[in-house]
Amino acid sequence: MQFSAEFAAEFEQLLRWRRDVRHFRKEPVPEDLFRHILATACLAPSVGLSQPWRFVRVDEPGRRLAVRDVFRRCNAAALSAQAPDKAGLYARLKLAGLDDAPIQLAVYAESEPAQGSGLGRATMPETVHYSVVTAVHTLWLCARVHGIGVGWVSIIEPEAVTAILDVPQAWRLIAYLCIGYPDGPADEPLLQRAGWEKRCDPAALILAR
Amino acid sequence: MQFSAEFAAEFEQLLRWRRDVRHFRKEPVPEDLFRHILATACLAPSVGLSQPWRFVRVDEPGRRLAVRDVFRRCNAAALSAQAPDKAGLYARLKLAGLDDAPIQLAVYAESEPAQGSGLGRATMPETVHYSVVTAVHTLWLCARVHGIGVGWVSIIEPEAVTAILDVPQAWRLIAYLCIGYPDGPADEPLLQRAGWEKRCDPAALILAR
Repeated sequence: MQFSAEFAAEFEQLLRWRRDVRHFRKEPVPEDLFRHILATACLAPSVGLSQPWRFVRVDEPGRRLAVRDVFRRCNAAALSAQAPDKAGLYARLKLAGLDDAPIQLAVYAESEPAQGSGLGRATMPETVHYSVVTAVHTLWLCARVHGIGVGWVSIIEPEAVTAILDVPQAWRLIAYLCIGYPDGPADEPLLQRAGWEKRCDPAALILAR
Repeated sequence: MQFSAEFAAEFEQLLRWRRDVRHFRKEPVPEDLFRHILATACLAPSVGLSQPWRFVRVDEPGRRLAVRDVFRRCNAAALSAQAPDKAGLYARLKLAGLDDAPIQLAVYAESEPAQGSGLGRATMPETVHYSVVTAVHTLWLCARVHGIGVGWVSIIEPEAVTAILDVPQAWRLIAYLCIGYPDGPADEPLLQRAGWEKRCDPAALILAR
């Protein structure tokens, strides 16, 4: 299986136009498409082929409100911890699409999966969690290919969300995602557009040994 | 920016033909191509746009031998810990391409990056490490687009490798990668072909709440 130069160029466009989306339209995502995106995410690499990802779709209004409250509390704490010169800008950033995104998805890791028989994770058990991150990233890219935006909400307390969602205590929350049609695509990270941070020169990140 | 149905289909082929490669040809990877792949990896998402990934290219023969020794020791320990019915199969698996891959790359996280000003990681600091995982996964996919294979070696002790590579103690090893032209592409995971494990039905991994 070989890939053409045209595909390589378009794949890079995909990477450039993937965004962490916080502005969503309320329009639902077709169920078949969402299932397809989830199935595609399961093609991600995993340590020992353990596929430790577990997807929890959050639809119940009471649970959604409770998660939003966790986010608001954590975000208020983060705002009050900002340096004075950053606080005004921080307060104006929109950091989650929890009010509008039609789909909310909590992605968990089963930390001790039977599948894979433990291969590859004796000395680096964190690779189980990293496997779930690659599934989230695969989901993210696949969604963007199909015009669907994804936003990763990390300003939450994992234990609080896990209690709200009533999932096994041994599972570890890796990501809480908002998913839906984006309200306007962009090729520049929102934090860069908003003046919070900008990308650095890749050459500065490489060492030789 | 919209993506065509043809691109969507080819993107899924990329996911299906990405492999954890352990069999490499010794032929070098063109330097320009490798630099391009690293730069592309830096388009990955990162918490607060912190870009906490640090790439350490390992070329020095002494350091490579020392890393290989760490792998051999850890792999011998893993073999001796196998259940009797799995030990024979485990012993026959090739789990790293450290002898042949022309490029070895250790990928680290700077756990407390200045870039990003801490945004998004107060309650989930592990998202810094997860950001580096998405960079590794982006590198992996971009390499495969260009016909280059990547193998993630996790059967190592991170502390031992970090001591060998003489990098800042505050950095955390996320992945040790072998990179080069694969000795024969495949659309099926090696662990599945070898009878160690097989992929499960994605529908079994979805809960509703």
